[in-house]
Amino acid sequence: MNVHRIGIIMNGVTGRMGTNQHLIRSILAIRRQGGVRLGPDETILPEPILVGRNENKLKALCAEHGLEHYTTDLDSVLGDAKYPVYFDALTTQLRFENIRKAIAAGKHIYTEKPTATTTEDALTLYKEAVAAGVKHGVVQDKLWLPGLLKLKYLIDTGYFGRILSVRGDFGYWVFDGLTQPCQRPSWNYRAEDGGGIIMDMFCHWRYVLDNLFGPVQSVVAKGAIHIDRRGDEQGVEYQGTAEDAVYAIFELEGGLIVQFNSSWCTRVRRDDLVTFHVDGAKGTAVAGLRGCKVQHDTFTPKPVWNPDIEQPIDFHADWQDVPNNVAYDNAFKAEWELFLTHLVKDTPFRWDLLEGAKGVQLAELGMKSWKERTWVDVPPLG
Amino acid sequence: MNVHRIGIIMNGVTGRMGTNQHLIRSILAIRRQGGVRLGPDETILPEPILVGRNENKLKALCAEHGLEHYTTDLDSVLGDAKYPVYFDALTTQLRFENIRKAIAAGKHIYTEKPTATTTEDALTLYKEAVAAGVKHGVVQDKLWLPGLLKLKYLIDTGYFGRILSVRGDFGYWVFDGLTQPCQRPSWNYRAEDGGGIIMDMFCHWRYVLDNLFGPVQSVVAKGAIHIDRRGDEQGVEYQGTAEDAVYAIFELEGGLIVQFNSSWCTRVRRDDLVTFHVDGAKGTAVAGLRGCKVQHDTFTPKPVWNPDIEQPIDFHADWQDVPNNVAYDNAFKAEWELFLTHLVKDTPFRWDLLEGAKGVQLAELGMKSWKERTWVDVPPLG
Amino acid sequence: MNVHRIGIIMNGVTGRMGTNQHLIRSILAIRRQGGVRLGPDETILPEPILVGRNENKLKALCAEHGLEHYTTDLDSVLGDAKYPVYFDALTTQLRFENIRKAIAAGKHIYTEKPTATTTEDALTLYKEAVAAGVKHGVVQDKLWLPGLLKLKYLIDTGYFGRILSVRGDFGYWVFDGLTQPCQRPSWNYRAEDGGGIIMDMFCHWRYVLDNLFGPVQSVVAKGAIHIDRRGDEQGVEYQGTAEDAVYAIFELEGGLIVQFNSSWCTRVRRDDLVTFHVDGAKGTAVAGLRGCKVQHDTFTPKPVWNPDIEQPIDFHADWQDVPNNVAYDNAFKAEWELFLTHLVKDTPFRWDLLEGAKGVQLAELGMKSWKERTWVDVPPLG
Amino acid sequence: MNVHRIGIIMNGVTGRMGTNQHLIRSILAIRRQGGVRLGPDETILPEPILVGRNENKLKALCAEHGLEHYTTDLDSVLGDAKYPVYFDALTTQLRFENIRKAIAAGKHIYTEKPTATTTEDALTLYKEAVAAGVKHGVVQDKLWLPGLLKLKYLIDTGYFGRILSVRGDFGYWVFDGLTQPCQRPSWNYRAEDGGGIIMDMFCHWRYVLDNLFGPVQSVVAKGAIHIDRRGDEQGVEYQGTAEDAVYAIFELEGGLIVQFNSSWCTRVRRDDLVTFHVDGAKGTAVAGLRGCKVQHDTFTPKPVWNPDIEQPIDFHADWQDVPNNVAYDNAFKAEWELFLTHLVKDTPFRWDLLEGAKGVQLAELGMKSWKERTWVDVPPLG
Repeated sequence: MNVHRIGIIMNGVTGRMGTNQHLIRSILAIRRQGGVRLGPDETILPEPILVGRNENKLKALCAEHGLEHYTTDLDSVLGDAKYPVYFDALTTQLRFENIRKAIAAGKHIYTEKPTATTTEDALTLYKEAVAAGVKHGVVQDKLWLPGLLKLKYLIDTGYFGRILSVRGDFGYWVFDGLTQPCQRPSWNYRAEDGGGIIMDMFCHWRYVLDNLFGPVQSVVAKGAIHIDRRGDEQGVEYQGTAEDAVYAIFELEGGLIVQFNSSWCTRVRRDDLVTFHVDGAKGTAVAGLRGCKVQHDTFTPKPVWNPDIEQPIDFHADWQDVPNNVAYDNAFKAEWELFLTHLVKDTPFRWDLLEGAKGVQLAELGMKSWKERTWVDVPPLG
Repeated sequence: MNVHRIGIIMNGVTGRMGTNQHLIRSILAIRRQGGVRLGPDETILPEPILVGRNENKLKALCAEHGLEHYTTDLDSVLGDAKYPVYFDALTTQLRFENIRKAIAAGKHIYTEKPTATTTEDALTLYKEAVAAGVKHGVVQDKLWLPGLLKLKYLIDTGYFGRILSVRGDFGYWVFDGLTQPCQRPSWNYRAEDGGGIIMDMFCHWRYVLDNLFGPVQSVVAKGAIHIDRRGDEQGVEYQGTAEDAVYAIFELEGGLIVQFNSSWCTRVRRDDLVTFHVDGAKGTAVAGLRGCKVQHDTFTPKPVWNPDIEQPIDFHADWQDVPNNVAYDNAFKAEWELFLTHLVKDTPFRWDLLEGAKGVQLAELGMKSWKERTWVDVPPLG
Repeated sequence: MNVHRIGIIMNGVTGRMGTNQHLIRSILAIRRQGGVRLGPDETILPEPILVGRNENKLKALCAEHGLEHYTTDLDSVLGDAKYPVYFDALTTQLRFENIRKAIAAGKHIYTEKPTATTTEDALTLYKEAVAAGVKHGVVQDKLWLPGLLKLKYLIDTGYFGRILSVRGDFGYWVFDGLTQPCQRPSWNYRAEDGGGIIMDMFCHWRYVLDNLFGPVQSVVAKGAIHIDRRGDEQGVEYQGTAEDAVYAIFELEGGLIVQFNSSWCTRVRRDDLVTFHVDGAKGTAVAGLRGCKVQHDTFTPKPVWNPDIEQPIDFHADWQDVPNNVAYDNAFKAEWELFLTHLVKDTPFRWDLLEGAKGVQLAELGMKSWKERTWVDVPPLG
Repeated sequence: MNVHRIGIIMNGVTGRMGTNQHLIRSILAIRRQGGVRLGPDETILPEPILVGRNENKLKALCAEHGLEHYTTDLDSVLGDAKYPVYFDALTTQLRFENIRKAIAAGKHIYTEKPTATTTEDALTLYKEAVAAGVKHGVVQDKLWLPGLLKLKYLIDTGYFGRILSVRGDFGYWVFDGLTQPCQRPSWNYRAEDGGGIIMDMFCHWRYVLDNLFGPVQSVVAKGAIHIDRRGDEQGVEYQGTAEDAVYAIFELEGGLIVQFNSSWCTRVRRDDLVTFHVDGAKGTAVAGLRGCKVQHDTFTPKPVWNPDIEQPIDFHADWQDVPNNVAYDNAFKAEWELFLTHLVKDTPFRWDLLEGAKGVQLAELGMKSWKERTWVDVPPLG
């Protein structure tokens, strides 16, 4: 058995997302299954070293999961040839400097989004990685959500006929931390700490739209600070200075229109926390995180507008579930496996730092559209 | 019994909307119930004369409903003092000239929307009516839909706390007339015949928003001709030249944001053909034509984002119906009764030609925003 | 109003099918609705005269339905120019001679199927009608059943992708007349009286297949007399000498395979008395008389063969109804209206005596295949 | 306790069917239950040695199930007297040579079907086994499916009266491996690798029909390659060269007609993946893998053909389930137990290599009927 052992510097995995999705459900899950299988006799085994500022936390995390290696000294491990890969799950504002150092040290890069706080910085990372000849990838996990994979299947098999329009709805009610504890970190609601739903979510919508429906070409966005008094992790009241909702319309290559709401101030009355409603000439689909409902032309009802009687059609009943005909792996793990294979086998991997920069770009232009009250074009990057 | 008999010239009620809503369910229904009751001994009895071009149709309609009076000669009846009220349900392109004539003849005016095809014309009607000293009203039926009355109740009782945002979704799948018969008139899809969903629906949204949530102050809109090949009433293929969907964001006085989609090219997966989702600090409501669902702060769930498992919350189950504690009359009839009372008793009636002009204005500015790709402010009218 | 009055000689409408479907639900229904509408000012009004052997029956039938004209003398009415159309719903064995006489008298022909008892005779009728220059049509009612119209819609809109195969199942349990009264006429089970399910049903399947899926090109059929002792209308036992079931496979132009069972000796466990199961690359449909269920590729489950557990998939639940988006008229009436319009306006009408002869041909070749135990090709006719 | 230990050479049980059904659910299950009980003090304990080409797989399989013995050297174990039984679950094309060697080595034979790729070879195996005096059996598992045992019960108790006809429907939608992964091995769809549904399924239908309804005497079959572009286990597109559906009619001794469809290209709208619809003079049954529905003459409805109204009878509701009055063991295990008892006690066991050869014969003649477009008689074998 040919085992490729890949040392990975995991920086910032003591946070919730880093621990759960990247460490436990991705890297450790890959190890438990015996590595990424390349063939009957070949496999890739990731070997992580955890990096952070709090040694106690690192130690506890290692102990809990049977890991041996951790350090609080990033520089030393960047100098260690046993670890050719640098992974970054730090808070956004620390990311740019750390990735730069890793590139300078010749490490391959895999990182959470947003890759930087400005398009310029994000693009710098891409250019420096290219110049250094290292491989690079950005987490674009939503592409491997079962609901979006089902949507991709529908697109690829021509189910929709011509796609007419897309409506995205993301969000849920985030309690304000005063009446009930808030279920998100308080920095999300402070602009001065890098918060705001535009930077958080437009990074996602960019790659989802680009990959599923076509390149985003222009945007009009309207942000809002719906709730400006909130309580932080200690229950202390603070001023919300970052937008907690954004109402946007995107136009894609070929003129496809995407109307997309993102809000932390909405109570959910739809199938899931995020839904993509895609109308096509031949059928419609509404995809959530895992499920996907379809209504094909052949069973589309013909409603009559008559407010004098109760609506006789149940508009939720005349849809069908796309079945779970294949088993779906964790979305983060799925992309990790592709990236590791890319490292070892040089297979194509298109979700790189340039793609990551595009996400930052869309967020930046969304902010600009909001401030200038006009449509803003999205120029090519790189 | 003091019976106020009011002669009404009903022009254009041989069309579907005119016949069903205005003649049968409003005027004839009011007559069947013995008129509009003003008190134990006082009532208003509308006495219609039908006006149209096709004598056979008018005759048949009168015969079917036990009416005696009809004519194809508008001018003569405009000169007849027995009929002090002129009602107009003609196609939009004929309305301006006919209403002008009626004003000139000193008739009170009640009319369908849009009141004209341009803001300027609509405003002219308003000014001439004021100058002539006649009373005037415009059909704004949606305000009396049970679903919107329930919403109004929630607003008036302070249920929402501060209202944060509104999302409107209107539309359904209109078949293209080629594979299945189209359930709407073909002129709706031809710009040259006055078609287009912006003029049709923004007239409604203007008065709904103004009356329920506050004056509309700016708009960004993106129209689309999603399906450009359609079949007409005879199944003959034609070119769709008017927009069949529009994606808009409105900003109201005080900064309230309303995101509103209107589409004849969408398959419905929501509670009703139109829904208003209103998020407030203290609770949310989703109103349809007749029903209205609420989720108060006190039973708002706290969702967890975990795509690795099926969503454990049923986001449709945790809502409550606003009950039908009062009986709801037909929306058109409700406004007719208010207008007739206004005529006889001079009670306030704020849904007049100025309000009608505001609807046309919003449609016009929506078109402008679409063409110029920018937010457009809505200046005060009149 | 321009009214085209068309006198129709209706021969043999005292039988169940003739009375119910042709007289009451077609001709009388057309009269009740004011005729076949050709436009706002033009209509066709059929004026029937009933012909039969039993004067009492004719008289009673006329009285019941407010008709004035009947006769037992076919020859005299064939000589009457007021009646340009001859309709035939006699038993099959009388049809050939009567239609010939009507053609010789210059009447237009409309007739039930089978048009004759042999292909040669059926073809003779066609040729003589052509030579006489009269118009002619054959009842092919199943084409206007709502279920088959829905199937046609699915075919025309490309729902199936490539159609792979068709399975037809027709039949139900016909009691033998000994234990319970038989619900069909006893001659159906006696070859010497023209009985047999092949002649009865293959006439239908020919036009259904030709019109929906493509020309039938070859057939293998296996008939059976499953129950050979039956009781007649008087409960008297007799020998069943005609096949009461037939198991067939048809091959259509382009190689499409149709497997088709027809049986009066089967208990029904399917959606309807006849079902057409059409499998296509992109979706499947199962049509009955009125309903049609679809399972599109997008919600096709992936079953696992595991007889150790109860089947976890409910194979009836994962289908959708094609909705009744249009109103469906009686199938016989629908074809009558087309034929009457063809008479007056010379509109195309392809269901003529040649098409009728094809039905007889397929039945004849089905019998031949049964006897010779081999596939039989279906040569072009006419 | 008298324990008969029987050494069994299990060749080819690393495949899915071999591992699951023969090793785990049959041999290991028999071992877990303490062997095949012959009486209070006597039992048969099978002792397997696994044979295959891939030592790693064999080793892993043994480790997983606590087995000790495996080898990649068939010849050596054929020479080992500790193992008097040879079991074969190899791919069909390897079977003939391996069984011959086992017979030559004096082993008793138990084997999967088809026993060979030609009738001649299959018959050779039978003759050589007889000549060698070894015992022999062939897997005919469907006979022990609960659904077919229920059907057998109905036949044996005279429920049907005279059986009139049988309709078999087998199949389901096998995805093409291009849009979704295929759930069957790709060689099934390549004639050059021994694929094709006729050889696969006619082997089953032969023994099912022979055992339940009577000897098959003639066949007409029509095969089809409905989907000729498929993707293999690696997603690589290939040409489908073997039939993926077959439409057949069988005639049994006494004239009983069996119409039987087998298809990997059909979407299932029936009770189960395979159903046997048996119509009898006194009642009907529809058996699936586990369930069986009956409609006795006493509750058979009398349908009326009236397409003008919705069918008032629910043709699925008026059936009754045959209850699970006995516990049903795994079908493979049930036959294994009978074969092991036959070995030790010489009890009758009629499912031998001659019966296996009959299955191959029916497949061969089905192919012949397809090519020659005619009915083909099935001559006696052996």
